[in-house]
Amino acid sequence: MSKTAVEIRTGAYYDSVVLMQLQRSLSEQPGVLDAGVVMGTDANKDVLAHSDLLAPEVRSAGPDDLVIVVLGEDEASAHDAMKKVDDLLTKRGAGVEVADYRPKSLESAARMKPETNWVLVSVPGRYAAGVARQALHLDKHVFLYSDNVSLEDEIELKRIASEKGLLVMGPDCGTAIVNGVGLGFANKVRPGPVGMVAASGTGLQQVSSRIHQMGSGITQALGTGGRDLSEAVNAVTTRQGLDLLSRDPETQVIVLVSKPPSPGVADDLVKAARLAGKPVVVDFIGYATSLRQVDNVHFATTFDETARLAVELASSSPEEGLSVDLNLERFSPDQRYLRGLFSGGTLAYEALLILQDYLPAVYSNAPLDKGFRLTDLLVSKEHTLIDLGEDEFTVGRLHPMMDNDLRIRRLEAEASDPEVAVILLDVVLGYGAHSDPASELAPAITKARANADSSGRYLEVVAVVSGTDEDPQDMHAQVEQLEAAGALVETSNDKAARYVGRLLRGLNPEINPKIQEPMKSVDLSFLQESLAAINVGLESFMESLVAQDAGVVQVDWRPPAGGDQKMMAILERMKSKS
Amino acid sequence: MSKTAVEIRTGAYYDSVVLMQLQRSLSEQPGVLDAGVVMGTDANKDVLAHSDLLAPEVRSAGPDDLVIVVLGEDEASAHDAMKKVDDLLTKRGAGVEVADYRPKSLESAARMKPETNWVLVSVPGRYAAGVARQALHLDKHVFLYSDNVSLEDEIELKRIASEKGLLVMGPDCGTAIVNGVGLGFANKVRPGPVGMVAASGTGLQQVSSRIHQMGSGITQALGTGGRDLSEAVNAVTTRQGLDLLSRDPETQVIVLVSKPPSPGVADDLVKAARLAGKPVVVDFIGYATSLRQVDNVHFATTFDETARLAVELASSSPEEGLSVDLNLERFSPDQRYLRGLFSGGTLAYEALLILQDYLPAVYSNAPLDKGFRLTDLLVSKEHTLIDLGEDEFTVGRLHPMMDNDLRIRRLEAEASDPEVAVILLDVVLGYGAHSDPASELAPAITKARANADSSGRYLEVVAVVSGTDEDPQDMHAQVEQLEAAGALVETSNDKAARYVGRLLRGLNPEINPKIQEPMKSVDLSFLQESLAAINVGLESFMESLVAQDAGVVQVDWRPPAGGDQKMMAILERMKSKS
Repeated sequence: MSKTAVEIRTGAYYDSVVLMQLQRSLSEQPGVLDAGVVMGTDANKDVLAHSDLLAPEVRSAGPDDLVIVVLGEDEASAHDAMKKVDDLLTKRGAGVEVADYRPKSLESAARMKPETNWVLVSVPGRYAAGVARQALHLDKHVFLYSDNVSLEDEIELKRIASEKGLLVMGPDCGTAIVNGVGLGFANKVRPGPVGMVAASGTGLQQVSSRIHQMGSGITQALGTGGRDLSEAVNAVTTRQGLDLLSRDPETQVIVLVSKPPSPGVADDLVKAARLAGKPVVVDFIGYATSLRQVDNVHFATTFDETARLAVELASSSPEEGLSVDLNLERFSPDQRYLRGLFSGGTLAYEALLILQDYLPAVYSNAPLDKGFRLTDLLVSKEHTLIDLGEDEFTVGRLHPMMDNDLRIRRLEAEASDPEVAVILLDVVLGYGAHSDPASELAPAITKARANADSSGRYLEVVAVVSGTDEDPQDMHAQVEQLEAAGALVETSNDKAARYVGRLLRGLNPEINPKIQEPMKSVDLSFLQESLAAINVGLESFMESLVAQDAGVVQVDWRPPAGGDQKMMAILERMKSKS
Repeated sequence: MSKTAVEIRTGAYYDSVVLMQLQRSLSEQPGVLDAGVVMGTDANKDVLAHSDLLAPEVRSAGPDDLVIVVLGEDEASAHDAMKKVDDLLTKRGAGVEVADYRPKSLESAARMKPETNWVLVSVPGRYAAGVARQALHLDKHVFLYSDNVSLEDEIELKRIASEKGLLVMGPDCGTAIVNGVGLGFANKVRPGPVGMVAASGTGLQQVSSRIHQMGSGITQALGTGGRDLSEAVNAVTTRQGLDLLSRDPETQVIVLVSKPPSPGVADDLVKAARLAGKPVVVDFIGYATSLRQVDNVHFATTFDETARLAVELASSSPEEGLSVDLNLERFSPDQRYLRGLFSGGTLAYEALLILQDYLPAVYSNAPLDKGFRLTDLLVSKEHTLIDLGEDEFTVGRLHPMMDNDLRIRRLEAEASDPEVAVILLDVVLGYGAHSDPASELAPAITKARANADSSGRYLEVVAVVSGTDEDPQDMHAQVEQLEAAGALVETSNDKAARYVGRLLRGLNPEINPKIQEPMKSVDLSFLQESLAAINVGLESFMESLVAQDAGVVQVDWRPPAGGDQKMMAILERMKSKS
C-alpha cells in the first residue's frame, strides 16, 4: 500500500527553481510515485490535495513553511527518499557555474561592478519593495519581476524613480529587452526599428516575436507591470517609456500594449502618443475604438495585428500627417476656422467623425452630437461643416452634386469671413452628377483665394475628388482644374480630413492636448551603454544574462532578519536614516 | 436701382433639372443680376432671403408653388427676363434626344419594353411611394431615389418586395451599380470581385471609386436607403443584399457600409455576415469594435480602409477560418468543451476576448466577465480557460513558463473528461523560460490523445508557440516535437483562438447565431440579365442610362390628379381594387 512521508521546514527560504529541482529529483527516487515541494500557501495545499499529496500534517503549515511530501509505493521508499532531501538540496545548481564570490548585499554588488545600470529583483513579494528601494537609492534602473508587491509600494517606488529619471519596470513585470538583452522571460529578437512599451508580459513577448517572425526587429521593449495603467499608478512608467522612445533616434515606430486601461488613463496616453512625433501602434487589448487612426496613432486589436501594423509602418514612407509642413505662417493671425461644404452626406459624416478627434466642436446641420447643431443653417459658426445634400437644402431643388449654385454662393460667403482659414469640400463625379463640376467650382475657388489674398489672408481650399478615371467627367481633368485654382486635391476623404484636422490644431494651439510630462526625463544615454545588471532572486535570470553575454552580479540574497517582519521593519528604518 | 420681378405658379410641376436650367437661363439674360427658381418651401425661402431675392410676394407661396424671382438692374430688365420664362421652359432639354413617344404610365412603359427589370423613381416624395407600389405590382425591382417618403410607406414597400423576392433600394437611395450599370449617382467602376451593400450614398461611391483606383473592381453595388438599418425597417434590403451577394458566385468579398445602425440591428447583421461564407468587410462608420476580425467579418472604420481591406481580401488566398475543414465527425457525440491551459496571462486574455464572439460563456480564474469566474480553480466547468501564471498558482512556486508540472497534471485531468474536445495551450519560448518545454509537454499530449483514442474519442490539442528562431530553445525543434505528438501548432495566438472558436461552434450547433432569413430570396438570375429600366422622374437619370448603353424607357410623368392629394388617394384605392 502506498504511503506518504512529510516534512515541514519552518521559515526556510529557497529559490523556487531549487524547489522545482528538488521535487523532480524526489519523484525520480526508486519507489516514489509522486512528490510535492512547495511553500505552504492555501493554493498550494489545494494543489497537493488534488494530487493526493495533502497529508494531515500539511494542513497546519503556513505560507512561510517549506512543505515536502513524498508518496512512495510503501513506507520505506517514501522515507528513503525523504532522507535524501538535504543531499539533493546541496547538489542543486549542478551545471550552473557559480561565481567564486557572491556579494551578500546590493551595496557590495554595486561596488564590485560599478558599471551595472540595472537591478533585477525576483525575491518574494514582501521583500521586493525593499530591494527595489535600495536599487533606486544606488541610482539603478529596476526590473521588478516579483509580484505581491503592494500598490502603495509601487506608487512610492515609481515616484522616487521618476524624480530621479530612473525606470521601475514592474512589479510583476515578466519581461523586457534592453539594448538587445532580454530580462526575465524574453525572446531573442533581432535589432530593428520598433520600440515597445508594454504593461503585459506575454503581450510584449508575442508582439516582439511576431515582429521578428515578420522579418523586422526592435530597439527596446520596456515592461511596466500590469498595474501601471491603473488610475492609482497613473501610468508613470508607461509615460516615461513613451517619452524615452519618442526621443530615441533608433526607434522609428512605437508600440504600446496593455490590457484596457481606465478610460481617463487611456485618453491621456493617446494624447501623449499623438505628440510622440512618430507612428505609435496602440493595442489596449479589447478597447473599442471607432477609428483605427488618429494622427500618428494607430489602434490595433490583437497582438498579431499590432506586430503587422508596426512592421508595415516602419517600412513605409513617413506618414502624410507628419511629413507635410503645415506652413502656418501663411495664415493671418485671426484665421483659425474651418468651413466644410459637402455635397455627399456620408462623406460629410466621415469627415465630422475624424475631425472630432482634432477639434472641440464642429457645428453642422447634421452634427454627430446634437449640441453642435447650427441654429441658422445659412450662417456658419466657428468650425462648421455643412451637408448641402440634406433635405432642408434639396426640397424642390436639385441635389448639390448636380447643381453647384448654392455651394458656390456659400463658398463666397465663407471665404470672405476673415476668421476662416480652411474650406473643405467634396467633388463627387460619376453618372448622374454634374457633367463638369470643376468648371464651376474652380473659378469660384480662384476668386475666393484671390479675394483673401488681397485682404492679406491665405485661404486653404481642400477638395476631395471622389471618382474614377472612367467616369464621364474625366477625373484627371477635374483634378487639374481644381489644382490650377490653387486647391489641394485628395482622393481619400479620411486623409483629407486628417490633414485639415492637423492644420486647424496648428492654427488653434490652445486646443492641443495637454499631457503630463515625466517629472524628470530618463537619460537616453543608458540606451547606448551595454546592459550590466545586479540580479537579486531567481538564479535562472542570472543564467539568462550570462547566456546573452551581459554583465551580471548575483547577490547571495537571504530574507533580511531571517524573514522576521518586525525585525525587517526596524532594519529598513535604520537604513533610511543612515 | 435694382428691381425684383416675381411670379408664382400655383401647383405647377417641373423636373428640378428644368428649374435649374431656367434659373441659369434667366441669370444670363441681359440686365439680370441674379435669379431664383425654386419650389416655395421654407428652406428655399431662407435661401432666397440670403441672396436678397425674397420679395414680399414670395412669403405667401407654399411648397407646391413654383417661385420665380428675377433681380434686374432696373425694372425693365427684370420684367423682360420674366416674360421669357415660358419660352425658356419650352426650349428645355435642348441637346437631349427625346424619344419619339413617351408612355404616360408605368403600365404602358412596361408593355412597351417588357424586358425592363428595374424602375427608377425620382418624383417628389409624396408621389414616390405610389409609383414604387405600381412598380412592385409589375414585378420590377425598384430604385427609389426620392426622399421625403414616409417610414410607413418604406416598411410597407419593403414588405411587399420581400414577399415577392424583389429589391426596393431606398427611399433616398442615391446610388447603385447593377450589372455594371450605374443608377442615380454612380461612378464608372470596373468589374471585379467585390460586392457592396450600402445604406450610404457617397459611402458607396467613395468606396467603389477607391476600389477602382486601387486596381480592383466590383460585381454589384446595392443601395438600401439610409433608413434601412433602423429598428423600424429592420434592414430588410440590407439582408436581401447580403443574402444575394453571398449566393452570387462572382462576388468573392462583400462590403457592407452604413452609418452606425441601432445596436440590435448591427448585431443581427454581423451574425448574418458571419454566415455569408466569404469575407465581409463592415464599415458601420463610427461604430466602435474591440476586435477587427470575427470569423470572416472584418471591421473597418473609414471608406479608405474599407476599400483597402476589400481589395486585399479579394486578392489573398481564402481565409484560414473558412478554408480549414473542421472534420467534426472525428469527435464523439459527447465531446463539446474547450479547456485552455495558458502560462501567459495576456495570451489567455486575448484568447478569452476572441472566444467571447464564439461561445456564450468561457469560465476562467481570470475571466473577462466576473460572472464566469470558476468557483473551484482546480475543477473546470464546461468551456474553461485557465491562466496558470496567476498569483493563486505561483505563490511559492515557479511560473508555469519554467515549470510544466502543474500544467501537465491539469492536462491529464482535462483530457480524461469525456466532454472535452479541445485543449488549447501556449508554449512561450525565450530566455528565462523552460529550456525545452516541448520535451515535457509533447509526451503528455501524446499520452492524452492516445487515452482519448482508446476511449473512442478524438482530442484536438492546439498549441500556440510564441518565440523566435533565435531563441535558446530552437523554436523549430519545439514545433516539430509538438506536431509529432499530434498537436496543431500555430504561431499566432489570435488565429489559434479563432480556429478553436469555429471548431467549438461546429461542435455546439445550438449556439450558432440565428439569423432572420429573407422572406423570399431574390432570384439571382437578374444579375445575369442586362439591366433595362423604366425611369420615372429626373431626366438626367435617363440620360445616364443612355450614356451607359442600358435599355431605358422614360415615363412622361405628371402628378396624378394634378397633384390633388384627395383625388390621388381615391385613384390609388380604385387601382388597388382593380
